[in-house]
Amino acid sequence: MKLEKLVGERFKERPSDCVVDSHALMVRGGYMKQVSNGIFSSYMPLKRITRKIEQIIREEMDAIDGQEVHFPVVMPASLWQESGRYDSIGKEMARFSDRSGSPLVLGMTHEEAAVHLARDYANSYTRYPFMIYQIQTKFRDEARPRAGLIRVREFTMKDAYSFHTSQEDLEQYYDRCFKAYERIYSRCGLPEVISVASDSGMMGGSVSHEFMLLTAIGEDSIAICPKCGYRANMEAAETIVNNERDEVSEELKMVFTPNIHTIEEVCDFLGSEKSRSCKAVVYQRNSDDKYVVLFIRGDMEVNETKLTNYLGCEIHPAVITDDCGLNAGYIGPYDLKGDYIILFDNSLKGANNLSCGGNVQEYHYTGLDMERDLGKVEYHDFAKIVEGGICPVCGQPVITISRGIEVGNIFQLGTKYTKSMDMTYLDSDGNSHYPIMGCYGIGVGRLAAAVCEAHHDDYGPIWPMSIAPWQVHICAVRASDPEVKAYADELYEKLRSRGVEVIYDDRSVSAGFMFSDADLLGIPVRVVVSPRNLKQGIVEVTSRDKTLSAQLNIEEAVDGLVKIVNEMK
Amino acid sequence: MKLEKLVGERFKERPSDCVVDSHALMVRGGYMKQVSNGIFSSYMPLKRITRKIEQIIREEMDAIDGQEVHFPVVMPASLWQESGRYDSIGKEMARFSDRSGSPLVLGMTHEEAAVHLARDYANSYTRYPFMIYQIQTKFRDEARPRAGLIRVREFTMKDAYSFHTSQEDLEQYYDRCFKAYERIYSRCGLPEVISVASDSGMMGGSVSHEFMLLTAIGEDSIAICPKCGYRANMEAAETIVNNERDEVSEELKMVFTPNIHTIEEVCDFLGSEKSRSCKAVVYQRNSDDKYVVLFIRGDMEVNETKLTNYLGCEIHPAVITDDCGLNAGYIGPYDLKGDYIILFDNSLKGANNLSCGGNVQEYHYTGLDMERDLGKVEYHDFAKIVEGGICPVCGQPVITISRGIEVGNIFQLGTKYTKSMDMTYLDSDGNSHYPIMGCYGIGVGRLAAAVCEAHHDDYGPIWPMSIAPWQVHICAVRASDPEVKAYADELYEKLRSRGVEVIYDDRSVSAGFMFSDADLLGIPVRVVVSPRNLKQGIVEVTSRDKTLSAQLNIEEAVDGLVKIVNEMK
Repeated sequence: MKLEKLVGERFKERPSDCVVDSHALMVRGGYMKQVSNGIFSSYMPLKRITRKIEQIIREEMDAIDGQEVHFPVVMPASLWQESGRYDSIGKEMARFSDRSGSPLVLGMTHEEAAVHLARDYANSYTRYPFMIYQIQTKFRDEARPRAGLIRVREFTMKDAYSFHTSQEDLEQYYDRCFKAYERIYSRCGLPEVISVASDSGMMGGSVSHEFMLLTAIGEDSIAICPKCGYRANMEAAETIVNNERDEVSEELKMVFTPNIHTIEEVCDFLGSEKSRSCKAVVYQRNSDDKYVVLFIRGDMEVNETKLTNYLGCEIHPAVITDDCGLNAGYIGPYDLKGDYIILFDNSLKGANNLSCGGNVQEYHYTGLDMERDLGKVEYHDFAKIVEGGICPVCGQPVITISRGIEVGNIFQLGTKYTKSMDMTYLDSDGNSHYPIMGCYGIGVGRLAAAVCEAHHDDYGPIWPMSIAPWQVHICAVRASDPEVKAYADELYEKLRSRGVEVIYDDRSVSAGFMFSDADLLGIPVRVVVSPRNLKQGIVEVTSRDKTLSAQLNIEEAVDGLVKIVNEMK
Repeated sequence: MKLEKLVGERFKERPSDCVVDSHALMVRGGYMKQVSNGIFSSYMPLKRITRKIEQIIREEMDAIDGQEVHFPVVMPASLWQESGRYDSIGKEMARFSDRSGSPLVLGMTHEEAAVHLARDYANSYTRYPFMIYQIQTKFRDEARPRAGLIRVREFTMKDAYSFHTSQEDLEQYYDRCFKAYERIYSRCGLPEVISVASDSGMMGGSVSHEFMLLTAIGEDSIAICPKCGYRANMEAAETIVNNERDEVSEELKMVFTPNIHTIEEVCDFLGSEKSRSCKAVVYQRNSDDKYVVLFIRGDMEVNETKLTNYLGCEIHPAVITDDCGLNAGYIGPYDLKGDYIILFDNSLKGANNLSCGGNVQEYHYTGLDMERDLGKVEYHDFAKIVEGGICPVCGQPVITISRGIEVGNIFQLGTKYTKSMDMTYLDSDGNSHYPIMGCYGIGVGRLAAAVCEAHHDDYGPIWPMSIAPWQVHICAVRASDPEVKAYADELYEKLRSRGVEVIYDDRSVSAGFMFSDADLLGIPVRVVVSPRNLKQGIVEVTSRDKTLSAQLNIEEAVDGLVKIVNEMK
């Protein structure tokens, strides 16, 4: 490819709307252009990167007996009504009607389509296990697209679905897929990706993992135990609390706390620790606006994912109305009356001498003893794990919290979809069962952005050989010099005839301009052909990651470059 | 791939809803499954076929300097408002709103996206010409999806867009693309595809061609001149009429024609030929329901595409109301008064002694002389070309009409999109111009179906080696025999290690069942391993198209098969 003809603009200034480096570099380098919020077109360099990533994914999916299939982007609502997700998924799902008024949706994931494709065929145990996958466009109407290709509305995804006749078989396959994912990241130049336990969210199922690239610009928070290696998305990390209890329980006493609302103000006023207070956090169910009052220790935060999973429905922060019976700023568990869902976090279990709201304007209690004053109530884990928190596996108080980009996820789905969509098979005794499913996703564009995020400098991406848009970048400095032009042309043709992917810059521009463009394209190997070099009978070869800087004899340049490219593969 | 694990059902009965063979065979063979009207999922065999077709297309597009890019499926309405097509395209375009209420559309073609991607970059003449293309999902809400993959609502399409600074340059590139298309069809096993002049329809522009596979089940009608080779879609074929005129013009006379309405009834009643009558065909404009009265010779039919193109707007057959002033069944050009668009087909030019409606209930005229009675009116070509019609190129009355499936199209678009979307470049003198565009489409799934339509027998498709899902199909007849199993297993592994794509059937089923499945999968080369064969030291090799039937020594089978596969490539 001649760089002169490469469609796409490259420029120096960091666009003001780019908050992460991968986004800024991929806009500056002519990789992509925004069409609408969270919707992008790709130029040739990015298309070549994503196609190479797709091919790596395809090879690894084929290697674990995956069958590549193709599901539609547009699906009838009826298919999603079968699984129940037409109603349970909110605005992220795009919905419209066709010319006859039939409701359609855009696929944001394809469990329903996978069951539809397989259910007639897979009616006997002899046909299991199997895995089908596709690499296809998806649309999710994200509320807040951000960070270029990290969080978009339209994206290309590899989504795979496996079907099994036993949990053991699913687990075995899940493990094979887990290892395939590790190979995929490694081959794409991201061996540093780690797996973490995750929340299954709208997918259903129990066990699930996310694959994370740790980076400060990541959207996810990951709890890591440096002692035992425990790793989990904060949304899924169990919070362990060692509740301390004073030996003597004070008397429960109502205290006048005028104009005191927040937990900080209460503790200041009473001269107590936040960890010795019982805080109320109030939500409402999306479906019927019923109030959910959650009590948690004053120094802890609510993990809304845990709360949503416990309730089995979506919630939003409460709007406290005058007539709802709740006294904003003065809500406490003692003598709280009303038609609310009342929940208690583990952090309060067994605690005493707590301050809490008095359920009366301007009054708080002190001396609350959970057991004595509230009797037998259930406690659950609703709290966010924190830096320095207790590891739920080894029990050491050494948890660290890191940020990460999720670059893949795998789920053990169980029978959620096969049951709801009535997919069954007969076992060897003629008994009917629901098959057990797993599903496995990787976002292609996000993976490309993650590689860029992990491997770049101020001047551009540093693409690994495996996914680089081209392998060698020839810069013919002063191509107006006939000797330079002739040699560079020949080098270009010879390398191509040897199967090397080459981008060739023979524009009449300054060396500095040329090298800036080369940095933005991030090709692993750069060759500089210049009058001075040729006079010395050499070409200069450098790698984009600066680990290589060499001179090759002009006679041996082709062989030398082929060797370098092969070694970097 | 082991056939035993191939997801998808194969069966004998032709599904009752399949009207064409390719649809029936691809459903019977486990290639595809309908998800909704005109929306299909693909199983592995079809996915492999379409991926191979895509790769052939990609290679040919790259060979004519195409740059593969990626446009989104979901686009903002604003982009289509720029070109004006948001309003001019009807219900075929799917429209919906995102969570913030912004209107979005699903891409049915990507001229707008191509201009959007290129317009900032291509601001100087030095950056021309260039071509960008993608292979991507499209959605068109077709009113009547039919014939399996021939006419669907969701499909994968290669769409390419070229940009030029002169009409000559466009024409040169158009010709290169034309030749690339011929290579694509040839490589996919359809060298018999022909090109025909076509109507540009909603794309705009002037010159355009369609590539057609002639077959009785095709949706398009193609006018072909066997003398000079002229070929055009009937929608675009110019109709030449040699108008005969009687030497003596009779007197224009009003005749009482009670209860006579249709052209046939009129001619019967008056004892005249249909070719000596002037028929009125009435439409209304979609935009304002204004009446369009088109007069044409009684023996000819209206080509609505020509009429639509002439008017520059959509039309529908008229609803004649009591107060519109038109007398249904008695409409004639003489003394017709009212606010109508009145048009005349070339077939009436210079004619005399015609019968026509009298614009009065139950009355017709005879003796109409177009020139004498109507004066100077304009005549245009609105008629459908017919079998035996006059070739517009060589003038011989030998036109034949054939049916065909359109498997690709190319358009010279001109500046329709660059003008409306304000894409400009500066020439070497610093003057601003609109670039000239061409666009080039191929539907991947339809091409697969067309290959199947052209190459199949009663038992299944006969896939060409270039796009077959696998290259060799091993049938291990009586795989329960350890010798058979061992040899077939080895053959399978050895062929795969030589890079041959193999599907391997080692199921415990009868030979007949096995061969039926093999016929449905349509793999070019079949190898039968059986106890009887092995006893003779051979395997049987046949080609799906029956041109090859051979025995290979078991020792030489691998080499022999590799050779056969390579020869069939």
